[in-house]
Amino acid sequence: MLQRIDHVGIACRSLEAAIEKYTSVFGLSVTSQEVNEEQGVKEAMLALGASAAGLAVPFASYIQLLEPLSEDTPVGKFLARRGEGIHHVGYAVANVTEALATIEAGGLVRLIDARPRHGSMGASIAFLHPADLGGVLTELVQPVSSGGI
Amino acid sequence: MLQRIDHVGIACRSLEAAIEKYTSVFGLSVTSQEVNEEQGVKEAMLALGASAAGLAVPFASYIQLLEPLSEDTPVGKFLARRGEGIHHVGYAVANVTEALATIEAGGLVRLIDARPRHGSMGASIAFLHPADLGGVLTELVQPVSSGGI
Repeated sequence: MLQRIDHVGIACRSLEAAIEKYTSVFGLSVTSQEVNEEQGVKEAMLALGASAAGLAVPFASYIQLLEPLSEDTPVGKFLARRGEGIHHVGYAVANVTEALATIEAGGLVRLIDARPRHGSMGASIAFLHPADLGGVLTELVQPVSSGGI
Repeated sequence: MLQRIDHVGIACRSLEAAIEKYTSVFGLSVTSQEVNEEQGVKEAMLALGASAAGLAVPFASYIQLLEPLSEDTPVGKFLARRGEGIHHVGYAVANVTEALATIEAGGLVRLIDARPRHGSMGASIAFLHPADLGGVLTELVQPVSSGGI
């Protein structure tokens, strides 16, 4: 079901400063930058080497930098509670709807999102409850160009 | 420099329980299980789909489950301070010695390990200081079979 690690989501107080750090230290560049009002974040995706070199989407992986739009958002509350750091991990799946159905049928992990919603770079995503996965906020990601694979 | 996300390291109180959860929910299996006395952990690596399907090492990614050998270890202290959850992220690099030299020369991030040490599955690894990377404990990983690529 899980094909690879698609991204790690990193909560930061300043997206600009975090981008500056990651591009300076590791020579990365910003692949995509957007505001997701629904999730209350502005964010940047930085593709790692294989992705940046133009390899096919099934092998892409990203660093996702997340700045909350306000304190009263999930990432804003995370920063207040724990400070900056890794907020979640996103795994690529071939079909997020099917993955959710399988996980729900298993009955071991509660779904935060019963249906897929809009994620970064046009992906369909859904979150699973961290309380049922050892404190790990877990995201399933179906990249836009791998639908149905 | 960073080729892909090699793994996320997840701190757990019971390795056995965490393995049971990840294998049951996601259908994963344990690729490797070992004790690393130097790091004070017993751990399991669970390969994600592409890796499990036998794709080349450059595309492998793993979930690394970490149980501390005692409370007086880095992961033991992490659990006491923050509870179970994502402990670090590991990025694959072609050559960890060269990557450390580049990062040290940049002067923006302190090295926890000035020289590579032994990591999971025979890899050469080194950690970078989380205080200089927005609270993210960051590991560089040179997998055993990709030396010098």
